[in-house]
Amino acid sequence: MAEPVTVDDPGDPRLRDYTGLTDVELRRRREPAEGLFIAEGEKVIRRAGQAGYAMRSMLLSEKWIDAMRDVIDASTAPVYVVTPELAERVTGYHVHRGALASMGRRPLPAARELLGRCRRVAVMEAVNDHTNIGAIFRSAAALGMDAVLLSPDCADPLYRRSVKVSMGAVFSVPYARLDSWPHGLEEVREAGFRLLALTPDERAVPLTEALPGGPARVALMLGAEGAGLSARALAAADERVRIPMAHGVDSLNVGAAAAVAFYAVSGAASPRSPGAAGAGGP
Amino acid sequence: MAEPVTVDDPGDPRLRDYTGLTDVELRRRREPAEGLFIAEGEKVIRRAGQAGYAMRSMLLSEKWIDAMRDVIDASTAPVYVVTPELAERVTGYHVHRGALASMGRRPLPAARELLGRCRRVAVMEAVNDHTNIGAIFRSAAALGMDAVLLSPDCADPLYRRSVKVSMGAVFSVPYARLDSWPHGLEEVREAGFRLLALTPDERAVPLTEALPGGPARVALMLGAEGAGLSARALAAADERVRIPMAHGVDSLNVGAAAAVAFYAVSGAASPRSPGAAGAGGP
Repeated sequence: MAEPVTVDDPGDPRLRDYTGLTDVELRRRREPAEGLFIAEGEKVIRRAGQAGYAMRSMLLSEKWIDAMRDVIDASTAPVYVVTPELAERVTGYHVHRGALASMGRRPLPAARELLGRCRRVAVMEAVNDHTNIGAIFRSAAALGMDAVLLSPDCADPLYRRSVKVSMGAVFSVPYARLDSWPHGLEEVREAGFRLLALTPDERAVPLTEALPGGPARVALMLGAEGAGLSARALAAADERVRIPMAHGVDSLNVGAAAAVAFYAVSGAASPRSPGAAGAGGP
Repeated sequence: MAEPVTVDDPGDPRLRDYTGLTDVELRRRREPAEGLFIAEGEKVIRRAGQAGYAMRSMLLSEKWIDAMRDVIDASTAPVYVVTPELAERVTGYHVHRGALASMGRRPLPAARELLGRCRRVAVMEAVNDHTNIGAIFRSAAALGMDAVLLSPDCADPLYRRSVKVSMGAVFSVPYARLDSWPHGLEEVREAGFRLLALTPDERAVPLTEALPGGPARVALMLGAEGAGLSARALAAADERVRIPMAHGVDSLNVGAAAAVAFYAVSGAASPRSPGAAGAGGP
């Protein structure tokens, strides 16, 4: 453990991990390059730690020291105590959640490695909105998806906003990036997965009819809000599937569509199906 | 049709419907009291008109006149042409969608009247976030819910933000307010509906197991993000139901939970169920 140190110079180089947090473009470049991400608020900081991420440092105002005492004691990372005003000057916003932690990233697993131990994976193409990424991870965790695969142009699940919206689910659902797209999907198929591409296209098969029974492996492909999956991605799928829509409605938002599709493929939709809670019972 | 009139005084009383649009508290009081709501952007204005709402007036910048010409011609409402700067001074924000319309509200139907012609209704308690209300209506429309009932303290589906997030679904899904809560639920039960209360409580019955087969009427009750349904509302339900969650995850966000639940109760989850697309077939 480290004794908390009071810092009163906004230009102090020890605060560098926390500078300009509201500049999305800057942080999007800096954080992966410098191997860090920012966890915000007591709950998220704790979840990051529980998931095994190492803390680089913590920044907090004095009144939060007691609440975070056990986290501080359990780590050797330096802890910087600042006034709320100084925190705002450094980060660019009013840090109303009281504590920020800079956490070290870990190398992502290879897709191949993840796929070996999964049965249900979500594959996202070009989902570059941090809120949507976070919401999709939260639903993936709740609805029992085993892992998430990202196309190279998806947003960063560890960006501050994604982490917050996911309620920390980005720490608990393992994920990997496919290096090439859509060619990398071949690897998913070779690992024994059936590739289902979600689309609002009315000619696609209703999701439940496309689901193979039993323990078959399913990779559910989702595109971004608005654009949906690209033609190349659709062409690379084994089957195009849709959520049945009431007449006259174009589509669900991507978060709602993802939740419904995860629910359907995870087996919870059919109480007696082999994928449901009672799986493996007599 | 009315000839477009150029207005260059931000204090012109004819622009009164559009003043202070960013002041949520003000607009939340004014709009229902004055019998109006604001439709923003070409698509939403058209959908409001198609749904039968009468236009009181339109406010737009000159370059949008051609795009809106047919809407202008089809109405007798006055059309005010302003510069983007004037639009911003009046409304309080940069109107990048180009056109705003003030639309007349209509009396809401009585709950009893709606229930008579519905089979699947969503009942919302205290959902007072305009984004959530909009998202839930969008999913309700797409996933085939017949109507929405609101507790007295739910937010206004016709507030500008709700309308936008719903993509106009607030115009197509009929809704009513229950005058008393939770006592008004008795009326829903008397209309032949089984009241299912959605909760993350692990002791509740998995949603699919609670669904009555065939043409039975179901009212699905949803609470607000965070708080969920109140104890009084839960006590007034016929059954408590849950979406099966993977171990260790607290809950879905309310939009995702609503989408999954609508999907499950609308019958799309079971391809061969009487509620699905093939209903009534041989």
